[in-house]
Amino acid sequence: MELWYTEKHTPDAGITIKCRKTLFSRHSDIQRIDVLETKEFGRMLLLDGLVMTTERDEFFYHEMLVHPAVNLSLRPPGEVLVIGGGDGGAVRELMKYPSIRRIVLCEIDPMVVEVSREFLPGISCALSENDRLEMVFMDGEEYVGENEGRFDLIIVDSSDPIGAAEILFTEGFYKKCLEGLSLEGIMVVQSESPIYHLQVMKQVKYSLISAGFSHVRFYTAPVPTYPGGFWSWAAAFKNDFKNSGNRFFLPHEEVERLKFFTPDMLRSCFVLPAFLKRELG
Amino acid sequence: MELWYTEKHTPDAGITIKCRKTLFSRHSDIQRIDVLETKEFGRMLLLDGLVMTTERDEFFYHEMLVHPAVNLSLRPPGEVLVIGGGDGGAVRELMKYPSIRRIVLCEIDPMVVEVSREFLPGISCALSENDRLEMVFMDGEEYVGENEGRFDLIIVDSSDPIGAAEILFTEGFYKKCLEGLSLEGIMVVQSESPIYHLQVMKQVKYSLISAGFSHVRFYTAPVPTYPGGFWSWAAAFKNDFKNSGNRFFLPHEEVERLKFFTPDMLRSCFVLPAFLKRELG
Repeated sequence: MELWYTEKHTPDAGITIKCRKTLFSRHSDIQRIDVLETKEFGRMLLLDGLVMTTERDEFFYHEMLVHPAVNLSLRPPGEVLVIGGGDGGAVRELMKYPSIRRIVLCEIDPMVVEVSREFLPGISCALSENDRLEMVFMDGEEYVGENEGRFDLIIVDSSDPIGAAEILFTEGFYKKCLEGLSLEGIMVVQSESPIYHLQVMKQVKYSLISAGFSHVRFYTAPVPTYPGGFWSWAAAFKNDFKNSGNRFFLPHEEVERLKFFTPDMLRSCFVLPAFLKRELG
Repeated sequence: MELWYTEKHTPDAGITIKCRKTLFSRHSDIQRIDVLETKEFGRMLLLDGLVMTTERDEFFYHEMLVHPAVNLSLRPPGEVLVIGGGDGGAVRELMKYPSIRRIVLCEIDPMVVEVSREFLPGISCALSENDRLEMVFMDGEEYVGENEGRFDLIIVDSSDPIGAAEILFTEGFYKKCLEGLSLEGIMVVQSESPIYHLQVMKQVKYSLISAGFSHVRFYTAPVPTYPGGFWSWAAAFKNDFKNSGNRFFLPHEEVERLKFFTPDMLRSCFVLPAFLKRELG
């Protein structure tokens, strides 16, 4: 028997991946959670039937979610909030920065953390070992509203803007994040696929600006198992963006160990394809 | 009835695209040629069952195949050879350069040109209208061997290194290309997916160097319908590579009309992911 997982990225196109077996499949209070074992991409975590991360290409996404934003900061960030990100990949990357003394992971669904700890040790490895980490299981919007001016960096590592994560793409949520940021704080938001979700990207941009962010810059990278194989993030600045020059806050030995991000990408990832530049004005 | 085209990029993973109908399906002397009509990607050209180009994302590939190499040249190129490229996309992009007085399209299979003219007018539009174009239907290796020192730029727009195109990835072929180039000539080669074909990329690199090219630089871009959604090209320099600075040979009004490439990419597309940089030494 051959078992193939097919994810339709639109009603008319998608990816298909051969599965060895289902390692986990349950409904939490929030969503359906599956872990599939595949030959091509290793273990895959799915939420509500959509690929969230795979062992093989998670580093494309997690390194690009974390390292550009941290290194665009004017000063090395001290306190960081991750909203979503229950698989632990963003926390793992953040732990590499000595300056970061506190990471709050605010994940709405504790079962995502449990499942990642059990089945995705390479991704979740930083979720249990460090006194710099605080885990909070609640709604991200609510949490950030209670922490005014606290965070130097807020990372929104959400699923798609349907269901539980829908609120994480709204102006109201972004306003609370703006208040949760310190004076020179930065927020980074995963902003979907430039191939299939251009409207989401536009909505993210206008909502961030309406919420009061002074400056929004999109960047992109390939992520093979995500829709279109091509993904985007928005970096939003509370105050004026000043290029920090060539400083790089990650210790040299950690830079050497990265699998996707390189210091040169701090510039290059912001160079957008012409169609995207035009669409995003 | 729903008809889905599925291309396996490996035995265990692939893409799947819903088809409206088959517009063309025949065996030429060289290969099987199909044109499918799809909702998501428009018309798709397939050779031996693999997607070569689609109306929706062809510009990702063709603009990145042509514009980096032309603009890395020390002087605006005058004579250009395209090997493969029977769909006409590369020729269309080259025609935008006033300096180019002659383009030779050397395609082994005349049926690819016929089919592209009939079914893909947006891609093949430059294949019939211009006295700067010369079309030759023969083996690329043979042709280039007869044209010593002639071309300022050689573009290898081939299919995968199996079947007819296999020879286009060998040291012997690259040696003939080196001889076909003028003194400061450049060659650009599509070099497959960094996700699935790392061994091909390495082979391309070592074969180009062994053939006598002085310098090889890889660059990448997303191409949604290609394996992994992420593609690579190798630019190879006959003599020492000197950065031409900020000159850009494409007229401003043509730059404004590009859909993927922007002048900033002349630097950014060469910034490789860490794993790729390491693998390619």
